[in-house]
Amino acid sequence: METEVYDFRYPVKGAYVWRPYGVKIRRLVESYIRFVHDETGHQEVLFPVFIPYEFLAKESEHIRGFESEVFWVSKGGASEERLVLRPTSETAMMPMFKLWIKDHTDLPFKAYQIVSVFRAETKATRPMIRLREISMFKEAHTAHADREDAEKQVREAVEIYRKIFDYLSVPYLISQRPEWDKFAGAVYTIAFDTVMPDGKTMQIGTVHYLGTNFSRVFDVKYLTPNGDWEYVHTTSYGISERVIAAMIAIHGDDKGLALPPNVAPIQVVIVPIMYKGSEEAILRETKAIQEELIASSVRVKVDDRIDRTPGWKYNYWEMMGVPLRIEIGPKDIENRQVVLARRDTLEKYVVPRNELIESVRELLRRINDDLRESSWSYLRSMTTKATTIEEAKRRLDEGGVVEVPWSGDNDCGMRIQQLLDADALGKPMDEDATREVGGLRDLACNDKQANYWLRVSRRY
Amino acid sequence: METEVYDFRYPVKGAYVWRPYGVKIRRLVESYIRFVHDETGHQEVLFPVFIPYEFLAKESEHIRGFESEVFWVSKGGASEERLVLRPTSETAMMPMFKLWIKDHTDLPFKAYQIVSVFRAETKATRPMIRLREISMFKEAHTAHADREDAEKQVREAVEIYRKIFDYLSVPYLISQRPEWDKFAGAVYTIAFDTVMPDGKTMQIGTVHYLGTNFSRVFDVKYLTPNGDWEYVHTTSYGISERVIAAMIAIHGDDKGLALPPNVAPIQVVIVPIMYKGSEEAILRETKAIQEELIASSVRVKVDDRIDRTPGWKYNYWEMMGVPLRIEIGPKDIENRQVVLARRDTLEKYVVPRNELIESVRELLRRINDDLRESSWSYLRSMTTKATTIEEAKRRLDEGGVVEVPWSGDNDCGMRIQQLLDADALGKPMDEDATREVGGLRDLACNDKQANYWLRVSRRY
Repeated sequence: METEVYDFRYPVKGAYVWRPYGVKIRRLVESYIRFVHDETGHQEVLFPVFIPYEFLAKESEHIRGFESEVFWVSKGGASEERLVLRPTSETAMMPMFKLWIKDHTDLPFKAYQIVSVFRAETKATRPMIRLREISMFKEAHTAHADREDAEKQVREAVEIYRKIFDYLSVPYLISQRPEWDKFAGAVYTIAFDTVMPDGKTMQIGTVHYLGTNFSRVFDVKYLTPNGDWEYVHTTSYGISERVIAAMIAIHGDDKGLALPPNVAPIQVVIVPIMYKGSEEAILRETKAIQEELIASSVRVKVDDRIDRTPGWKYNYWEMMGVPLRIEIGPKDIENRQVVLARRDTLEKYVVPRNELIESVRELLRRINDDLRESSWSYLRSMTTKATTIEEAKRRLDEGGVVEVPWSGDNDCGMRIQQLLDADALGKPMDEDATREVGGLRDLACNDKQANYWLRVSRRY
Repeated sequence: METEVYDFRYPVKGAYVWRPYGVKIRRLVESYIRFVHDETGHQEVLFPVFIPYEFLAKESEHIRGFESEVFWVSKGGASEERLVLRPTSETAMMPMFKLWIKDHTDLPFKAYQIVSVFRAETKATRPMIRLREISMFKEAHTAHADREDAEKQVREAVEIYRKIFDYLSVPYLISQRPEWDKFAGAVYTIAFDTVMPDGKTMQIGTVHYLGTNFSRVFDVKYLTPNGDWEYVHTTSYGISERVIAAMIAIHGDDKGLALPPNVAPIQVVIVPIMYKGSEEAILRETKAIQEELIASSVRVKVDDRIDRTPGWKYNYWEMMGVPLRIEIGPKDIENRQVVLARRDTLEKYVVPRNELIESVRELLRRINDDLRESSWSYLRSMTTKATTIEEAKRRLDEGGVVEVPWSGDNDCGMRIQQLLDADALGKPMDEDATREVGGLRDLACNDKQANYWLRVSRRY
């Protein structure tokens, strides 16, 4: 199955090959990512992959976080210039922001790019998930006049990511990462995690408020209306092909992929069922339906291979995750009807020929929604609360996310991680997650009043 | 001017930043490149940037050509795995071709990708032209059953590149590179060169027939209908952001860019000319025209900034290369007319309001054509023949391309280069360049009969 999307056999650890069908999925995902960034006033840029080491090292927390996993570049073995491959582009962008931003009329400044970034992973690599070349890294970098405007941007970024994940029918938890796990160089980090079919969580997006940490060391200032020079406040936020990995893993089943119509390269496959004597009528009907669907902007493919049976084709296109199949046989032409089959539920419908386009549109919309809803109800079913260590452990062993009472104290939080042998995702930030903790005690430090829930899970 | 497209000030040699307006131009160019590759049955793939050095080194001519300009990658200074950054992807693709190609029904196999490639340039770097990170490298790689089919592919690739350069209104010469300047690992190389405004030539595309040079060392075989195993014959062909550099350099003038409408991010800018009392009518008319143009799929922008004069805006959008400007003042509304101004010729037209859309479409088409024609007549004017060394030298000193009689012998060809202090582009392969050399002698080796013209120029 996956080999049509992504080939695991490339001879370098943590580096894989996107095959044509996979590239088409990517392009559709990228194009939606561009759309939401463009419509919110982000400008697309393209920066070099090389960053001088001195720039990467300017912000002390940042380099501490990335030092161990940075790739160095040299010519013929000799490193003259001390270049690294970008692990993320804050330190590539800042010197240019310094040139581009002059005064308050240049703010806010919102840029993004979709590029490869590189991490010399020491952990075991994993296709599309833990890579040494992350090849679809969308990183946005913004600069603002003050903290207030930068935090407004953080909220906009969260809304942008909600929109992208909703479009892909991928459910998420939004958490403020604990201090000990925020982005290297950030004031704070808000992260999106999804729950994978094995019950582990996977981080699929992060949004960072960087304060003036980077603008100070790169000296990026602007002239205020009063004539003062002030440091800009910056943010950055990123997502990667992990969203595609999540989408594939969450919706797929043992028959193969089940792609949301929004990003399915082929939304409808037509399988003509040829019977002796009616071939011509069937091919004519197939062609007519194909053209109507194209005219309605549906991505359609006709599978008219003569050396394969209809049954073989059904299996093949189910494996490829095509959301809808249209079957056309002699009886259907006779009865002026069409048979539609959904990939996600495997349900079949017989619809009158003259309602076909309407039915297809309606079903494609419904499949997007149903995939979204079923994945959300899975995620909700995997998220529970626990107020004792035993209960929390049991839940974690069953898979999923557990919320436990937490004082907010870092030492106590790290102790909770240890006690539960799991990772803290942080404080819930979802709208519906601002719930009272009233009267509970911190799970690890029983002498402390719990002010928050702390989300804990085993993770990728 | 260029800083709105491309910023030269990034702090790494030979690496530059594409700014939003430049990214938009790129996206339009890339999308046409994808279109012509897709419509000719090429499949888009995406390979990792890392290539194991042993793979790069398998084909002996190939590594000899690339060894000196390859970037090495290491972690924390220690090179464990001997990885390099791809300078081109033949040696990344071949191991996967070996897995994907089983028998003759898998052939021809045609893949392409648009990616960054890396060359540790020793020569002086030059923005968009001589880069250490070539960030818009479109490379196609194909495999075929035999030489005949592979050479058919070479011809298809030549047609694809003609189409792309024509679309960008960039003129070209097509030459078969001499033996001593073919691609490292190729049987032969066909190259596209354009003539830049300073009279030097620049290579903008190459097509290589690779024979079985790569398939032998990577053991890429297919099963023939007879049940034999045969090596595939491969080709590869590439273009890069040099086509954008050429397009910008060739059509621009001292007022700034002059973009072909085909790839202009803004094809029409509307400048409302506000007069007291008629503001409302003018903005209404502006809005109406904008909507009509959008409905006709024209990329349009309204410049209604109130702190800039119309004259300032004219200059600004001329600098940005917007092909057409629409001016709307009170008199135009009164007379039910619109003023159109062409960027390329600076001509102005007054057209009746009810013919506007038609006129805009017609003018956009004509600007594409006129830019193409004027650049072709420049290229032709810069291409001459010479039969003596003195004449050839004089022509070269004036700038441009000189064709001189050549026997086809490599030593003689290299001697011609030396005598003329210029580079041989090779034998003309353009359709209209298959002309008789009848009776002439090789320019360097007078004892030899000339069989060909050899194109010679100073080049980038």
